[in-house]
Amino acid sequence: MTASDPLSLVFAALADPTRREILSRLSRGSATVGEVAAPLAMSAPAVSQHLKVLERAGLITRTAHAQWRTLSMQAEPLDQASAWVEKHRREWNLRLDALEDHLRTMRTTHRTQEAES
Amino acid sequence: MTASDPLSLVFAALADPTRREILSRLSRGSATVGEVAAPLAMSAPAVSQHLKVLERAGLITRTAHAQWRTLSMQAEPLDQASAWVEKHRREWNLRLDALEDHLRTMRTTHRTQEAES
Repeated sequence: MTASDPLSLVFAALADPTRREILSRLSRGSATVGEVAAPLAMSAPAVSQHLKVLERAGLITRTAHAQWRTLSMQAEPLDQASAWVEKHRREWNLRLDALEDHLRTMRTTHRTQEAES
Repeated sequence: MTASDPLSLVFAALADPTRREILSRLSRGSATVGEVAAPLAMSAPAVSQHLKVLERAGLITRTAHAQWRTLSMQAEPLDQASAWVEKHRREWNLRLDALEDHLRTMRTTHRTQEAES
């Protein structure tokens, strides 16, 4: 079962090394389908399938220029993915900090009790 | 076709709202399977399936404490996912900056030429 909410589509699109490679290429500048496909060792339909997944997630757009079509990366869905990951890393780190504080307090209390006994 | 490299497993695990909800819960502290399952409107086997995907991606671990098992979030795979996304957002922003510089230079050149003509 595949989730189809916007954020799930972005993470699913990123869950493939070929699609990440295509995004890497496009993060350095727009390119034609041929330019994107050239370094990939796969058939044109396979490349086309990956482009569709990236397009559905909003990570790339196609623009028609005269007779050829250009692919461009879109940063906004990446911003949302990044925001989710950062929020949870932060939450987790706060928890680790709190745990560390707690252990420090316990240790100090323990030492005080030892000194008093 | 599902990719099985470590980074793809992490992104695939994040590509589902229920699994992100489970991680949200665990980012605030370890919990038992029952505690994690309680707010989710789904069967125990469905929850178990989601936990397996998160575990395979290294995003959670299970620890046995006496007769019950605790689930804990692991931050490292999130760090790697974050690093990938940040690298490409940065690359993209550099490109936008370069484009802006280029447009500014063009505009200045154009104005100079206009003033000279």
